[in-house]
Amino acid sequence: MADNEIFQYSIVSALMDGVASHGTPISRVLAHGDHGLGTFRNMVGEMIVLDGEVYQMKADGTVVHVADPERTVTPFATVTRFRPSVRTRAALQGKAGLAGLLARLFPAARNHFLAVRLDGVFRLKVRTAGGQAEPREGMVSVASRQTVHALDGVKGTVVGFRCPEYVMGVNVAGDHFHFISEDRQKGGHILELETEGEVEVAAAQMSRFHLELPTEDDEFNEAELKLQAQGIKDVEG
Amino acid sequence: MADNEIFQYSIVSALMDGVASHGTPISRVLAHGDHGLGTFRNMVGEMIVLDGEVYQMKADGTVVHVADPERTVTPFATVTRFRPSVRTRAALQGKAGLAGLLARLFPAARNHFLAVRLDGVFRLKVRTAGGQAEPREGMVSVASRQTVHALDGVKGTVVGFRCPEYVMGVNVAGDHFHFISEDRQKGGHILELETEGEVEVAAAQMSRFHLELPTEDDEFNEAELKLQAQGIKDVEG
Repeated sequence: MADNEIFQYSIVSALMDGVASHGTPISRVLAHGDHGLGTFRNMVGEMIVLDGEVYQMKADGTVVHVADPERTVTPFATVTRFRPSVRTRAALQGKAGLAGLLARLFPAARNHFLAVRLDGVFRLKVRTAGGQAEPREGMVSVASRQTVHALDGVKGTVVGFRCPEYVMGVNVAGDHFHFISEDRQKGGHILELETEGEVEVAAAQMSRFHLELPTEDDEFNEAELKLQAQGIKDVEG
Repeated sequence: MADNEIFQYSIVSALMDGVASHGTPISRVLAHGDHGLGTFRNMVGEMIVLDGEVYQMKADGTVVHVADPERTVTPFATVTRFRPSVRTRAALQGKAGLAGLLARLFPAARNHFLAVRLDGVFRLKVRTAGGQAEPREGMVSVASRQTVHALDGVKGTVVGFRCPEYVMGVNVAGDHFHFISEDRQKGGHILELETEGEVEVAAAQMSRFHLELPTEDDEFNEAELKLQAQGIKDVEG
């Protein structure tokens, strides 16, 4: 895989159906990218991949650096070898502001994937999933117990993707961002976002998408994987 | 790409929206596979890729061997480097019979892609698209003028794929097969299928999917690409 291609292990619909007992070693995901997001076995916490390092952001508010990616498994992750083609600075009010900025920066990429990174000081609402209560518990149910933290004036990095509408179910259509603080002590899946002043914006168009499906995984094989577009929007939008 | 990985250029929803003026040289598709199907610029005819050779099956009933894949463009194609993992013989009554056989042959691949090839004598109904009347004419409209041929007792080869439901819109969910006669004189997109006696069946599971999107293509960028599941079933099912 070249720079700015998107690699994904499993599909979001599988998480919706609670397929999260197994997965692939995170080291295999890192072979395809240094920037991205995902989750962990049994949906315990939020994953962020930043400059090739992986962090697990947990519901109790702690953040763990994944020191042994060969031995840590992910049931779902999306990464790219991120080489920004556009860099700018911007003050953003809300996720809609970020979406508008990206549309202006990439007018010819309306139906393409984007990789995005923001560095600066943020006011955020983030959530962290606490994990499945039992195997095959679906993501909507897991998310009903999510912990929400307000982060105010926190310096750090936003990592994520914009995916085209037509991959809804395979991935999350639209914007999907995780945050980690500069001190690597706080973070999660972004529900609300504002910047304090201007932040650094870096982004790249991605036009090649690589998907690897779970094999020898009864949960994946038995899952219905019906499109639950509204459910995905509710828990990942 | 290794054997039995699936490579796709553009998405079926783009054809639905009439995105077919440009594309990629067929030689670039052949670099990723020797077995597959697709269409040609302006949706003129059906494409079949068999043992690395490409044929254009036209609405007038003729078949053209694509001798110069560097200079021939496809707006949509799906291929794999096909190395069958399962070989058997079977008599098949209808497309449902083939779907049932594939389900029995690959019980652990319910949510995976399959590549399929049948060799033998067939009784078929095939269609060939005549092409767009004007740029951006959508596939449903193009298909309304398709030519249907009945082929009775014809020796030849069926090439195609079974795609999981969750890629509907990106590709065609379910079975999608094209046929070409052994003498390379007749063929098309299969609407109805029966075998005369037993045919050779070869198939392989595919668990890695690679998608390349059109770039610098105004038609693709401007297309809505909304999911038209029923429309795709009507014209490609």
